Amino acid sequence: MDREAFRQAGYRAVDEVCEYFATLESLPVAAQVEQGYLAKQIPAQAPEHGEAWDTIQRDFHTQIMPGMTHWQHPMFYGFFPSNVTYEGILADIYTAATNNPGFNWTASPAVTELEFIVLDWLAGMVGLGAAFHSNDMSHEGGGVMLGGASEATFTMAIAARERALDRLAHTAPALRASLLPTMVMYGTSQTHTVGAKAAKMLGLQFRALDVCRADDYALRGATLQAALDEDRAKGLHPFILIATYGTTNSCAIDRLDEIARVAASDPTLWLHVDAAYGGVTLALEEERMPAHLDAIRTHFDSFSLNLHKWGLVHMECAPTFLRNRRYLANALSLTPEYLKSRGTDAAALNDLRNLQIVLGRRFRALKVWFVLRSFGQAGFRTHLRNAIAQAAHFAHALQRMPAFEIVHPPRWGLVMFRLLAAGTGTDVDALNRRFNDVLLTRQDAMFLTPTVLPEVGFCLRIVFGAPATEMRHVDKALDLLAQCAAQTLHHADEPHGAAPAS
Amino acid sequence: MDREAFRQAGYRAVDEVCEYFATLESLPVAAQVEQGYLAKQIPAQAPEHGEAWDTIQRDFHTQIMPGMTHWQHPMFYGFFPSNVTYEGILADIYTAATNNPGFNWTASPAVTELEFIVLDWLAGMVGLGAAFHSNDMSHEGGGVMLGGASEATFTMAIAARERALDRLAHTAPALRASLLPTMVMYGTSQTHTVGAKAAKMLGLQFRALDVCRADDYALRGATLQAALDEDRAKGLHPFILIATYGTTNSCAIDRLDEIARVAASDPTLWLHVDAAYGGVTLALEEERMPAHLDAIRTHFDSFSLNLHKWGLVHMECAPTFLRNRRYLANALSLTPEYLKSRGTDAAALNDLRNLQIVLGRRFRALKVWFVLRSFGQAGFRTHLRNAIAQAAHFAHALQRMPAFEIVHPPRWGLVMFRLLAAGTGTDVDALNRRFNDVLLTRQDAMFLTPTVLPEVGFCLRIVFGAPATEMRHVDKALDLLAQCAAQTLHHADEPHGAAPAS
Repeated sequence: MDREAFRQAGYRAVDEVCEYFATLESLPVAAQVEQGYLAKQIPAQAPEHGEAWDTIQRDFHTQIMPGMTHWQHPMFYGFFPSNVTYEGILADIYTAATNNPGFNWTASPAVTELEFIVLDWLAGMVGLGAAFHSNDMSHEGGGVMLGGASEATFTMAIAARERALDRLAHTAPALRASLLPTMVMYGTSQTHTVGAKAAKMLGLQFRALDVCRADDYALRGATLQAALDEDRAKGLHPFILIATYGTTNSCAIDRLDEIARVAASDPTLWLHVDAAYGGVTLALEEERMPAHLDAIRTHFDSFSLNLHKWGLVHMECAPTFLRNRRYLANALSLTPEYLKSRGTDAAALNDLRNLQIVLGRRFRALKVWFVLRSFGQAGFRTHLRNAIAQAAHFAHALQRMPAFEIVHPPRWGLVMFRLLAAGTGTDVDALNRRFNDVLLTRQDAMFLTPTVLPEVGFCLRIVFGAPATEMRHVDKALDLLAQCAAQTLHHADEPHGAAPAS
Repeated sequence: MDREAFRQAGYRAVDEVCEYFATLESLPVAAQVEQGYLAKQIPAQAPEHGEAWDTIQRDFHTQIMPGMTHWQHPMFYGFFPSNVTYEGILADIYTAATNNPGFNWTASPAVTELEFIVLDWLAGMVGLGAAFHSNDMSHEGGGVMLGGASEATFTMAIAARERALDRLAHTAPALRASLLPTMVMYGTSQTHTVGAKAAKMLGLQFRALDVCRADDYALRGATLQAALDEDRAKGLHPFILIATYGTTNSCAIDRLDEIARVAASDPTLWLHVDAAYGGVTLALEEERMPAHLDAIRTHFDSFSLNLHKWGLVHMECAPTFLRNRRYLANALSLTPEYLKSRGTDAAALNDLRNLQIVLGRRFRALKVWFVLRSFGQAGFRTHLRNAIAQAAHFAHALQRMPAFEIVHPPRWGLVMFRLLAAGTGTDVDALNRRFNDVLLTRQDAMFLTPTVLPEVGFCLRIVFGAPATEMRHVDKALDLLAQCAAQTLHHADEPHGAAPAS
């Protein structure tokens, strides 16, 4: 493809993106295809000779798009949202064209420097305080733009292990390896799988601490204290706690204030906050008190959020902040001759590669810069408050529908609910699994994901937060739920598995 | 930004990309800015209110672009290339707009299915054989599109550790943790830092096996055998060898044939090929014999290459192939209720999240599909052969310039050379460090990276492979090197560090 062909194809792609967002609502939310649909349409080998762009572009629309589940759809309420904005798409055009791996300052000064600047913007927006600012040279705190919560959790676990081993084996470095079998990561039963997965990747133990419904599934200080006492008595070394600000199940907020008090006396426990979905809400003044922001500011070692969930910036974008980046740099840095950076030999903290598990990667800061400048902090807050208002409206309306109950206090964009079993002669879990089966048949119109909440059972999650969702879509969701509920209850006496017609 | 504003901004961005590639040659290759240049121009906080797109777009050009080192510049010859093509940029527009995390089949059938299809295309192109095809259900081999060589190496190390621990502790799973201090990763002194970094991340030992100039820096079977014997006698468990097909320093190719023979009798050693830069050359029939492709096809456990280096597809794009994905899936999979995928509960290998350390990430296969279809395999080969011809032309011309010597046989796009010290009264290393200082002053015109090659010393690497580079740029590079050499030799009697004027 030559330059003029690209110009025409580029204009067309831009028009198609406009068309996509203009007509998104008319598309089925979830792909209506069977597994293996695509291999039937695409040759098993790459073509020997180049094909015309018109053909490729046509096939994108006829072969790929029908198999796409539309996370940007105004009726997509599953998992957590996956925001993208026009500003971010524009950034991607420039980012792709310059394709700069940015692993050190020399590789591209702009890539490195803009990242630290926007990280400071974000640290300011969510109120983390100066200790976490990268461009404050009075300390070694600061951030890095990781790919997602999995990578962030895993990367913080590496930094935490480094610090713990330094402290435990500082007089005898040879002991470090022998300590590995005693190292334990902590999370709760509600921690996202990123916690247990990080432990699996590191080959270390993971302990899921108990939380309960009476505490809104928040980890309490006393539970942490008991676990620390028990594990220390066994000769184990708990070296990181993955605390959560907004769990995937119920948006639980661990009691970060109590955790900070308990951990203050522990020499090796690194305190991390996984705020993948919830972190953006700290841009809202009214959310900072329940978030225990003061505890984070003064006692936590690291904090990570995803902008690519509810934060208007698309994947991958997980700003991650550390009180002291030195442990991470010590754990990750290796500098052969060909990677030495002009002007940064003495400052490992200025080369992104020392703060991430990968060497090079895309220029992530540009899209954040574009989005934050175009929306402003005020626009960012409005976006969040829209979704919170939608969830409140939804919860209020659902409460007035006698077939339903809200099983947990709504938080932010999330509402958890289920059908009431009273009078159906059916077990509530079985009824709701059947309800979910009905909902699955309507994934063309609305996409929800179920979960199992401890002490509650099987229930549904609905999460607002897509920029395309308006209040009328919330009402549409309520109507659809009422229809699916009626259909479920009508068939409530049939055995589970007899799939109702859609 | 509303839809019509995006349409106009998008057209403009497309025009700017055209302008960028049309005028790239006139830009300085390396950014001509001082460290900290950007923070002086950008406020310390995000703006409270949204700004006009015209302002943001203007600032991109006046603030960001001057700090960008242009990896796409026809005179960028540093590190390894970082290709991008128009087709890839178009893919990014669609990928960003649909922003789909694709962690399981339900999250988007097209994202999952296209990835396995293009992985099979690539496995076919580089001749890996059916054992590594994802859509061949007769075995559990196949691939995944990881982010880069660091992530690929690290991910394969996790799979290898899983297999080794399974075999070593299959009768007593409780032993697994206690075996960790005995686990050793192997590479060579020429293995990229991805090897040692992966070991650091896992908290395990890394042993760099010796290679020598007489062997062209290739790892030999006898060296591996001796190391295995020595380490086993110490009770250690070497569990993965990171062999390289094209080292960063000199494009060395480890003796994969000898390695395969030695490892055949080892119960736990996983054989991985890091072919980050070189892997694409297996698309060329004439490269397959020296690559020991037969050994890879029959004995190696995994193979990874980067398309985002010399393979026409921009970051991040590291297709990685495994003979058996099951070990990886066992090491990484955890499935809570909210991640269960419709139609794939029984088939962990069909969900991308089980084959990668992250949960969700961008749709990477689309850009590969666009590029391979638009170029065809023939166009892909032409791109590679252009760079190989440029390197050959460069080496041939340099050999006829009396001031220079080629220190190592050129391979693919890479030539390693240095100034000859004869008659200068200076140590050859010192002379070439000074030569590099002179080259640093001309990074506006040409970007090279130096290295230290064992048994040779300090020398320069020049790597061809950017799509923008034409034969006339190779001649320009030769002219510039001649000028910089003359300048260096003119000052050869001055003490090192007296920076010559540019």
